[in-house]
Amino acid sequence: MKIAIVAPSCPLKREAASQVQVIAEARSGCELLVHPQCFLSEGHFAGPDQARLAALREVMADPSVDAVWFARGGYGSNRIADAAIRDLPEAARSKAYMGYSDAGFLLAGFHRAGLEVAHGPMPQDVVREGGDAAVARALDWLVDRNPSALEPDVQAPAFAFNLTVLSSLLGTELEPDFSGAELLIEEVNEHHYRIDRLMFHVTSSANVRRASRIRLGSVDDIPSNDTPFERDEQAIVEDWCARSGVTFGGRALIGHHADNRVVRFGSIRD
Amino acid sequence: MKIAIVAPSCPLKREAASQVQVIAEARSGCELLVHPQCFLSEGHFAGPDQARLAALREVMADPSVDAVWFARGGYGSNRIADAAIRDLPEAARSKAYMGYSDAGFLLAGFHRAGLEVAHGPMPQDVVREGGDAAVARALDWLVDRNPSALEPDVQAPAFAFNLTVLSSLLGTELEPDFSGAELLIEEVNEHHYRIDRLMFHVTSSANVRRASRIRLGSVDDIPSNDTPFERDEQAIVEDWCARSGVTFGGRALIGHHADNRVVRFGSIRD
Repeated sequence: MKIAIVAPSCPLKREAASQVQVIAEARSGCELLVHPQCFLSEGHFAGPDQARLAALREVMADPSVDAVWFARGGYGSNRIADAAIRDLPEAARSKAYMGYSDAGFLLAGFHRAGLEVAHGPMPQDVVREGGDAAVARALDWLVDRNPSALEPDVQAPAFAFNLTVLSSLLGTELEPDFSGAELLIEEVNEHHYRIDRLMFHVTSSANVRRASRIRLGSVDDIPSNDTPFERDEQAIVEDWCARSGVTFGGRALIGHHADNRVVRFGSIRD
Repeated sequence: MKIAIVAPSCPLKREAASQVQVIAEARSGCELLVHPQCFLSEGHFAGPDQARLAALREVMADPSVDAVWFARGGYGSNRIADAAIRDLPEAARSKAYMGYSDAGFLLAGFHRAGLEVAHGPMPQDVVREGGDAAVARALDWLVDRNPSALEPDVQAPAFAFNLTVLSSLLGTELEPDFSGAELLIEEVNEHHYRIDRLMFHVTSSANVRRASRIRLGSVDDIPSNDTPFERDEQAIVEDWCARSGVTFGGRALIGHHADNRVVRFGSIRD
């Protein structure tokens, strides 16, 4: 099982790459290929659009690569997502793709293109507290499809997104069909009022309203408001679910933390 | 000419209300009615949704009110916009409505409902440096329809929005038809990478792509990135215009500052 790591948004830290290599090497049947593009840097990004796209297209087209693992989030995968799924090489169809946060743009577009994708931990997570477990869980799924890595209460078909990313892909070519699907959301580093505005936008979508239910993962590192918002993240999500007629299905084990579980998109073959 | 001030999002400061009253009283033919709801406070908002909606509906239905002036931005008008335009009283149709920033949700929905709306300075702007001139300009338009108050290069039909607000209303019941229209955008207090993401989202919209051109107002108070983004706000907007085939029409005199000019929505009668 060969897993290629590329960075479609921001650069991977070298120490994170080394730590993930150590974890992978201690495990049988797993070879990691860290693409040198992961360490490029141009302003905010892991190299210019062309370099990030070329590395991604290269590993997608490589028949010896079994899985593509997005190095980390940040911002930028939306800038190359359309081009990444254009004229898909056949080899791209026989592998799995995993990441979360900003990588959600790719997960969405790749799912629409018929590829097997999953929302789950990324290599950069190894630097989190308890991050070894997150990386091990990601490999449990990528290498062995071990069901213990999965979010425990998911009712397939399912999707999982960072809320800001979900809001930003509605109406674009990347938007999946949520009809009858469970939609898991998580957020990090957004004020309560922004979460409220995002939920207004997302639950106004006719497509999102066709979801079977919305479940809320972690909402971490919420900056303090100048005046307290007086509703917490769960109350905000429940409010907009009620206003839009979408079932609120409770909390979910996804988010920007080491406990982030894997969510496979759609109704994909095992 | 009676102008009613209500606060559909955050509370108006009492000193701002007093200063605006002084400016209005020094002017003939202009009576300001500052609704007491402007000073309510519940968490982030100028009172609960019901109170903000009731005050707005009250002044909309009042035949003696010639114009409704939104007190300030912040966040929250989207929470009551749908309800505000339901079963419109006849008196609501014979008045003008003005504001910007978060009030853009109302401008959009009210325009869709056939009301006369304009993007322009608000009472709270009086506390800005040079804010007296912004308030005088708003009254020049509201009271006299003085063309000197207007953004000088607008080619009607036109729309103007805060970029975040525009992104958040795409796909909702509030979204106007931008076909053949000039679309002015402005932003405040968003990182460069967020501006880039917003422009990705907005220019992915088929509706926005039918606009005749996009013009960029001020983008103020951009927080510094951990690494420099290496493209300024104009380069970002030009990039996404080029990628989406929308004409970039240059800069515009709108934004979160005292020079903010008035932009009437659509092709409205004089």
